Amino acid sequence: MSPIPLKPGVWGVVATPFSGPAFDVDETSLAGLVEHYEQAGVTGLTVLGVFGEAARLSTAERRAVLQTVAGAVGLPLVVGATSLGTAPVIEEVRLAQEVAGARMAGAMVQVNSANPETLAGHLRAVHEATGAGLVVQDYPLVSGVTIAADALVAALRDLPFVVAVKAEAPPTPPAIATLTAGLDVPVFGGLGGIGLLDELACGASGAMTGFSFPEGLIACVEAWREGGYVAARKVWAPYLPLVNFEQQARIALAIRKECLRRRGLILESSVRPPAASLPDSLSEQLERHLAEAGR
Amino acid sequence: MSPIPLKPGVWGVVATPFSGPAFDVDETSLAGLVEHYEQAGVTGLTVLGVFGEAARLSTAERRAVLQTVAGAVGLPLVVGATSLGTAPVIEEVRLAQEVAGARMAGAMVQVNSANPETLAGHLRAVHEATGAGLVVQDYPLVSGVTIAADALVAALRDLPFVVAVKAEAPPTPPAIATLTAGLDVPVFGGLGGIGLLDELACGASGAMTGFSFPEGLIACVEAWREGGYVAARKVWAPYLPLVNFEQQARIALAIRKECLRRRGLILESSVRPPAASLPDSLSEQLERHLAEAGR
Amino acid sequence: MSPIPLKPGVWGVVATPFSGPAFDVDETSLAGLVEHYEQAGVTGLTVLGVFGEAARLSTAERRAVLQTVAGAVGLPLVVGATSLGTAPVIEEVRLAQEVAGARMAGAMVQVNSANPETLAGHLRAVHEATGAGLVVQDYPLVSGVTIAADALVAALRDLPFVVAVKAEAPPTPPAIATLTAGLDVPVFGGLGGIGLLDELACGASGAMTGFSFPEGLIACVEAWREGGYVAARKVWAPYLPLVNFEQQARIALAIRKECLRRRGLILESSVRPPAASLPDSLSEQLERHLAEAGR
Amino acid sequence: MSPIPLKPGVWGVVATPFSGPAFDVDETSLAGLVEHYEQAGVTGLTVLGVFGEAARLSTAERRAVLQTVAGAVGLPLVVGATSLGTAPVIEEVRLAQEVAGARMAGAMVQVNSANPETLAGHLRAVHEATGAGLVVQDYPLVSGVTIAADALVAALRDLPFVVAVKAEAPPTPPAIATLTAGLDVPVFGGLGGIGLLDELACGASGAMTGFSFPEGLIACVEAWREGGYVAARKVWAPYLPLVNFEQQARIALAIRKECLRRRGLILESSVRPPAASLPDSLSEQLERHLAEAGR
Repeated sequence: MSPIPLKPGVWGVVATPFSGPAFDVDETSLAGLVEHYEQAGVTGLTVLGVFGEAARLSTAERRAVLQTVAGAVGLPLVVGATSLGTAPVIEEVRLAQEVAGARMAGAMVQVNSANPETLAGHLRAVHEATGAGLVVQDYPLVSGVTIAADALVAALRDLPFVVAVKAEAPPTPPAIATLTAGLDVPVFGGLGGIGLLDELACGASGAMTGFSFPEGLIACVEAWREGGYVAARKVWAPYLPLVNFEQQARIALAIRKECLRRRGLILESSVRPPAASLPDSLSEQLERHLAEAGR
Repeated sequence: MSPIPLKPGVWGVVATPFSGPAFDVDETSLAGLVEHYEQAGVTGLTVLGVFGEAARLSTAERRAVLQTVAGAVGLPLVVGATSLGTAPVIEEVRLAQEVAGARMAGAMVQVNSANPETLAGHLRAVHEATGAGLVVQDYPLVSGVTIAADALVAALRDLPFVVAVKAEAPPTPPAIATLTAGLDVPVFGGLGGIGLLDELACGASGAMTGFSFPEGLIACVEAWREGGYVAARKVWAPYLPLVNFEQQARIALAIRKECLRRRGLILESSVRPPAASLPDSLSEQLERHLAEAGR
Repeated sequence: MSPIPLKPGVWGVVATPFSGPAFDVDETSLAGLVEHYEQAGVTGLTVLGVFGEAARLSTAERRAVLQTVAGAVGLPLVVGATSLGTAPVIEEVRLAQEVAGARMAGAMVQVNSANPETLAGHLRAVHEATGAGLVVQDYPLVSGVTIAADALVAALRDLPFVVAVKAEAPPTPPAIATLTAGLDVPVFGGLGGIGLLDELACGASGAMTGFSFPEGLIACVEAWREGGYVAARKVWAPYLPLVNFEQQARIALAIRKECLRRRGLILESSVRPPAASLPDSLSEQLERHLAEAGR
Repeated sequence: MSPIPLKPGVWGVVATPFSGPAFDVDETSLAGLVEHYEQAGVTGLTVLGVFGEAARLSTAERRAVLQTVAGAVGLPLVVGATSLGTAPVIEEVRLAQEVAGARMAGAMVQVNSANPETLAGHLRAVHEATGAGLVVQDYPLVSGVTIAADALVAALRDLPFVVAVKAEAPPTPPAIATLTAGLDVPVFGGLGGIGLLDELACGASGAMTGFSFPEGLIACVEAWREGGYVAARKVWAPYLPLVNFEQQARIALAIRKECLRRRGLILESSVRPPAASLPDSLSEQLERHLAEAGR
């Protein structure tokens, strides 16, 4: 039996809150944060992704994060893998399966080659070793790998265990148009929702991202389904000043965690080095954006 | 006498319209376009910039573009230089002076080195050879040069002939905070206005960019001056869906020219190769954005 | 007590041989390979580095590789860490300590920030958690991080537990001149030995690299010590045709493994995907180089 | 009549010597330098290339350089174009034709697109406007454009006016194998000769580069023709220590000009900013290399 494609909608990409000078994982904050996501009505959660700072967590911490999330909410989970090599990805997926079990809706694996055959071989090997459904993430800024959208279609076309694509190679809207035309699986936008209206227009099934107001993402995607562009635009435009503010190169993670903190969703907003922290010069403007975005 | 700093406000970055299969410069469209800018109330125009495809124009064409613009409107002009080397920049600036004369408010020169002394030497040599006031453009995507904001302050601090900085190295808001704290000259945001609210909050004097609705840029900057964040946000948020749509990697130029064409401001929207043209998959969404943005 | 600086000389960077269609680690070949290194007279070995494809090995495989090497030879070992985040690096170093114990001469950690304080903090945290001496590898092609040589000196100057620097940010010779002038620890060149003569001239203590003829690296470094440039050049020049052939972008690993195979040092030369394999067009030339290099 | 393919052999890429604090073009040195090239027996010269710092020369200076070279020697000339856009390339080629006339063996144009059709359209437009034979340079480090070797074959296959390809996208040897298998025109290696033996083995017709000992390049290419690998290797290996020393990232130009100066071939070795100058730490080693290379 093939894995089931991800449900359309909004998959919240979960931050990992830290506390204290040693940046310990703050499991209490984490549990509260994902409960907020659940109450907001997300379709599912993406854990241990780039925004979750998975690449800066130890194996024990990854396990703890996953356990905390799985224990706090009943949502389906996509679990990210950080490596690009087949063997360590298999190891990461197995850990996720061990902890999340049937709660796991898919393992998110990065594009690791521009060559469709190499990529397909990698995904096939991961699936054969684990049985997991795979969410394929195309995020060149993080992976260092650039693949053309039609090559990605060629790589994934015959892989029945691919349950979704996360398209984060700008410009994403035309890429999503190509992917949704060539593949049967849902394609999700990311990148903080900066192009969400255009991604939906090009066939995206929703958003999988870490914008600090998941409520906004959900409202936009629902409005799109019911009223199309005009309705979605009306809902989404008021969030865009904050969306654009958050989605700043290199400091997006620090900004979003501080937004979550000021919203009362986590206790501290620190990011693990070497990630950049929030520039002081943005603190006041962050406050202004939050004051308006929540209305 | 030192050159005069640029006036704050909106400097429209002018596209170069082409016509026919040979991509001839369409001077009629160009004249009409800049007249629209003037009527919209821009502070000045930036000609022969990246968005003007200056790097794909011959010397004769650059001259023609500049003559057409100078003949059509009475606005002050910033004229872009395409080269990174001192001698060819001087040559470009002299051509601009010859054609634009006293209408030239500044020559826009790109950051050509991460080393403050090397950059200062370059700018000094250009000024000494031409007498021109210089707008310094920090745009790593085009120049290939990345300079830290404090190194840029160090380079420019003692150069009285610098009349403005155009900050286009993301994340631009904190960079603009550093630049405006360390320099006396106006700093302008660009990048299609994607971060305009935050750039203004960090001290920007306005915007210098090619967004297809200069009216929106002007309204936002004026609202900021009069009513601060809340007022500017109210004006600007409705434009952001189009702003984000336009500011897509690699295809921004093609999208904007097509927006200008559908607005009736130019006759054809072709871009000179090797610039990418508009993906078909975006055509309908472009129409939707335009229908709403103009309201 | 502070860890002891690495001994000068040649540290062989060990390839991980694979066998069969599943690319299983070939422990027999691996043991034979490092025995060859020992007989050739290397100062020590570097295991689980980039050339060892550590980023494509599972934890169990890393452990097996390390056990095999430690069991086969009595040489001191530098053990590479693949991650850039502090917590996973600590986890990798602990695994290495568990397996290699007192045989470990240092853990090799990559530069993870251009900011000296951030980098120093990272290294300090890794040392405090593990007690290990650290070899700092500056290899921007792999880490994605570019640090200036003087910033690297600033980061490392007060860290008594740094036992060596591996300088692989071209141009390496002037960087090594800066590093050896500012630091008390040995600095090693890498990059296949392509700049070895110049690195030695600039103060390098030797080479830490995976050139397929470690005999050549050793002869060159010894000749340098005894007879300076002219002597070293005489020994090294005959190897340079092969050195340059091996050090080709993207395919260096595949070339070197095939050289090792044809030399009879490993059984198969496959590399784990997505690493590029050997282009057919180079097979004959590889043979020619080997025929001459061994004389 | 179609333009004639370039003759095989060594095409010397000519440096532009400067003098004094203003970096004036030193025409006397330039004339002497190219006379040396002629006496050394090069097949032809490449003027206004990257190594000739053409991108930092004014139009008048480019003209002067070309006139000086054409006046000093009787060799066929390849003349470089610096721009990537069609219109300015046409302008550059016309200038070259005006000055060099029938002496021009080809205009060297950079690959400006990864898309074969776009590139072919560009080359066709340049040829149609000028009638010039074109040498196509694939040098991603300078152009910022990466094209696969088979896409380059597809672009050039039906263009009878292409007279040569200069392959400088590492790894060059397999690329040259693909290019020579798919095209009828000669393909030349560059990059200072660092891979010359392998490029010849893969079908290269010679070298087009600026190594400071053109004598060495010529001897190697001739030895290859007469005695194949073993003969060429014997001639070339003694030059490789200097070749590798020269071909250092970012500082190659400064090193080579200083080599030319110490050889007495030019009077001063300055490079125009923002190009990096020679690090002091390399001065002594440069001397050592020169002392041995000339033997």
